[in-house]
Amino acid sequence: MSRKKKTPKESFVSMTELVLPNDTNTLNNLMGGRLMHWMDVVSAIAGQKHCNSIVVTASVDNISFRAPIQLGSVVTLRARATRSFNSSVEIRIDVDAENIPEGAKVESNSAYFTFVAVDKNGKPVEVPEVVPETPEEIELYNGALRRRQLRLILSGRMKPQEANELKSLFDIKKE
Amino acid sequence: MSRKKKTPKESFVSMTELVLPNDTNTLNNLMGGRLMHWMDVVSAIAGQKHCNSIVVTASVDNISFRAPIQLGSVVTLRARATRSFNSSVEIRIDVDAENIPEGAKVESNSAYFTFVAVDKNGKPVEVPEVVPETPEEIELYNGALRRRQLRLILSGRMKPQEANELKSLFDIKKE
Amino acid sequence: MSRKKKTPKESFVSMTELVLPNDTNTLNNLMGGRLMHWMDVVSAIAGQKHCNSIVVTASVDNISFRAPIQLGSVVTLRARATRSFNSSVEIRIDVDAENIPEGAKVESNSAYFTFVAVDKNGKPVEVPEVVPETPEEIELYNGALRRRQLRLILSGRMKPQEANELKSLFDIKKE
Amino acid sequence: MSRKKKTPKESFVSMTELVLPNDTNTLNNLMGGRLMHWMDVVSAIAGQKHCNSIVVTASVDNISFRAPIQLGSVVTLRARATRSFNSSVEIRIDVDAENIPEGAKVESNSAYFTFVAVDKNGKPVEVPEVVPETPEEIELYNGALRRRQLRLILSGRMKPQEANELKSLFDIKKE
Amino acid sequence: MSRKKKTPKESFVSMTELVLPNDTNTLNNLMGGRLMHWMDVVSAIAGQKHCNSIVVTASVDNISFRAPIQLGSVVTLRARATRSFNSSVEIRIDVDAENIPEGAKVESNSAYFTFVAVDKNGKPVEVPEVVPETPEEIELYNGALRRRQLRLILSGRMKPQEANELKSLFDIKKE
Amino acid sequence: MSRKKKTPKESFVSMTELVLPNDTNTLNNLMGGRLMHWMDVVSAIAGQKHCNSIVVTASVDNISFRAPIQLGSVVTLRARATRSFNSSVEIRIDVDAENIPEGAKVESNSAYFTFVAVDKNGKPVEVPEVVPETPEEIELYNGALRRRQLRLILSGRMKPQEANELKSLFDIKKE
Repeated sequence: MSRKKKTPKESFVSMTELVLPNDTNTLNNLMGGRLMHWMDVVSAIAGQKHCNSIVVTASVDNISFRAPIQLGSVVTLRARATRSFNSSVEIRIDVDAENIPEGAKVESNSAYFTFVAVDKNGKPVEVPEVVPETPEEIELYNGALRRRQLRLILSGRMKPQEANELKSLFDIKKE
Repeated sequence: MSRKKKTPKESFVSMTELVLPNDTNTLNNLMGGRLMHWMDVVSAIAGQKHCNSIVVTASVDNISFRAPIQLGSVVTLRARATRSFNSSVEIRIDVDAENIPEGAKVESNSAYFTFVAVDKNGKPVEVPEVVPETPEEIELYNGALRRRQLRLILSGRMKPQEANELKSLFDIKKE
Repeated sequence: MSRKKKTPKESFVSMTELVLPNDTNTLNNLMGGRLMHWMDVVSAIAGQKHCNSIVVTASVDNISFRAPIQLGSVVTLRARATRSFNSSVEIRIDVDAENIPEGAKVESNSAYFTFVAVDKNGKPVEVPEVVPETPEEIELYNGALRRRQLRLILSGRMKPQEANELKSLFDIKKE
Repeated sequence: MSRKKKTPKESFVSMTELVLPNDTNTLNNLMGGRLMHWMDVVSAIAGQKHCNSIVVTASVDNISFRAPIQLGSVVTLRARATRSFNSSVEIRIDVDAENIPEGAKVESNSAYFTFVAVDKNGKPVEVPEVVPETPEEIELYNGALRRRQLRLILSGRMKPQEANELKSLFDIKKE
Repeated sequence: MSRKKKTPKESFVSMTELVLPNDTNTLNNLMGGRLMHWMDVVSAIAGQKHCNSIVVTASVDNISFRAPIQLGSVVTLRARATRSFNSSVEIRIDVDAENIPEGAKVESNSAYFTFVAVDKNGKPVEVPEVVPETPEEIELYNGALRRRQLRLILSGRMKPQEANELKSLFDIKKE
Repeated sequence: MSRKKKTPKESFVSMTELVLPNDTNTLNNLMGGRLMHWMDVVSAIAGQKHCNSIVVTASVDNISFRAPIQLGSVVTLRARATRSFNSSVEIRIDVDAENIPEGAKVESNSAYFTFVAVDKNGKPVEVPEVVPETPEEIELYNGALRRRQLRLILSGRMKPQEANELKSLFDIKKE
């Protein structure tokens, strides 16, 4: 039987959070840990929507925090599936922040979280394929293989020499 | 005037957290986002201890979540500085979990967070050098350059071809 | 000078929340107070977007809670401006809930919150007009007058006999 | 067998809360959503006391927020049953706030929440009658019928023309 | 000028809390630390009411936790001033718990917290005298001296031999 | 069969907390109730480590709060077993606080919590003996008997005249 297919649009989730005092550091800016907590929640929901099952966080790719986000800002997180593997799915999260009364917008930030779909006993289950539709979705789909190899290397489950997709990132001729 | 020097031991911090119901998912296991929030707090404290200043999270390296951590477990997070750059410092966090009444231990997990030291106006300030002492600390110190190049590439601030340290990870002869 | 105009679409906000243990009662269902807290946050953000200023909750219309929402459900709240008065704006919130792994959807719920736009000293400021576009938005716009009269009567600021719009709700011939 | 009877005094509950930073908006005033959350908790407890069973929030009547309540204030909420219907009970909540060190009192606010009494499987159960004693309790008891009709109309379960009690609010002669 | 006087009734505060999942341990019983947190809040409010100023916790007397309090219980805390010293006031807290749907009451518990009244710069200020009225209040007033000596001894600010009031507790003849 | 033995080092736990806005009072200092909540968590973990079972808080000895701890400070709590009785164990907690960017250290504070070890049904179980090693541990071990008598007297389970250990505190000749 062939595997179920779903578009990234079907797993899309948007979440909005208000930056409250307890979310901020001494400079009154959002703490990175709180933002990652929100990223995990929004991407887990996107993962649930794609897989129609419970999902557990398997890994988080490198995240880079750019401009500080002030107390009182509205943070918008958008998540959607980019590509799936047997029982896991990669979710991309895009983050925007805006201090509306002060008219200050903060540049977008992005991250990739990977989830494993499991049943009620925590056993991995097969997940639907992601079928990208737009040019942007296709680009994210294609890049997912490279990001996956990096994850496997960094967690010690793949040898760097075997990461053919990733090698191409370094623009090295394979002799 | 020469830069101040500090050992990893001087920034060492240990934090212990109890996994409560609101920290868990439907399977009664710790959610990844909550763990990352704790990792951010413990490593920010280690960063403060190393820099003697306010620090803000600049980036988080790839994190891989292994075994699930059950409700009621005691989570221990240990953080210390591995290497510093002009106004930033890399912190390594090691995580252990134990369900004491059930005698169940969860294998250790680790992560790298990078912080920028800032003054009260949010302007970056110079941070002390990290002087590694033990063989493990020296290895972490040496690996920091490679991790930094990966961070710079992934955030678009370095071209892969320039990442000489990182290339060696792929075991490629430089011609 | 004429007043600024904005469509309901310009103030639209979508917020997603996961029902965690502390949000639930003894039956493991979402507590009404927690849902109202989320409704207040999402509608305040919509109010901020419409007014481009700080907004404070002025009133909440009658809310009726239908089906219970289970622990682990994903709650989606959508808010947008329906109509504004001098310095206040009415926001409509629509709520959906879904327990994704169990495939259980909960019927939608709705509510109206009213906000006053204020400056940094808490003084009311004029807000943009709402210009409805779709048939549904026009219906919400028209009903706002009736809801406002009910609010004024219930808070003792209007006599029932003066509420002409509202009287029509009771289908009574004006003699 | 006749139904059990209870006075409003038997369900009376008083709750006190301190306004903390996370409860406040950008103007350092208590957010409406947090206050409604407290109102729900205190009235659910009064409902439990009246019904001696689990209760779930069925509806909230129009609430009007008057004066702002400052950070650091002490908020006192008082709740008691006003009247019961088959398996539901209406609770009235009165709210006072005081910033004690600054000697600032905030005028009282009030609200009506309705709860359904349920057994452990969530099935509605019969609740005791409310027997009002003081003139104020009798007035609240009498008004409950009118408020109930408004609730039923607003939630679409009664036609406005059938709401005889409510019509009297509009001072309209029944022909 | 003579010092202001106040009765215990004037500082009386009642607070009600619902035991939620995050307040409980693995056995689903209220954690002692959460209860102490609530005791601190209710007694600080009573302290504020007595002193009409900001108060800070100075000490907590020995607390003994008796019967476990279950998840879903309603906890009622009652606090009032017992006696004041120059710039400090002793508050007694009485705690009751009830699982209403299950009809289970938990025996009362009690504690004494001491607060120092301070101005906006944190400097101690004089507090009103407590004037006990009922026999129970007079007994609490009289016992306060003995409890104070114990506090001073235990914090190393008084030598045991000087604690005349306390010695009488041990029923020892002074020769 | 002889009882199991453990050193205080085997139950040692260190916990670090950052003082956030919601943890502070109007003067921006840590509230006593929050600190006690943390003390309860860290000492419960030490109790679990000593007993290898679930533990419940039985009592808290007199705590005296000295210097205020500012918002943004890092609070370090260290706990270890001092002595055990049949099914209970006394834990000593030492607290330090430091505002790192401002270079301000707060003097240490200490407290004693007592826990009862229980099985999954809440029935008390025997706990290992504490075997003190260092001179400080031996002193804490010896003092535990006196503290226990005080606890028993204060909770009404021992008559003062029977508290021989405690009498010696008052330097009174036994005739």
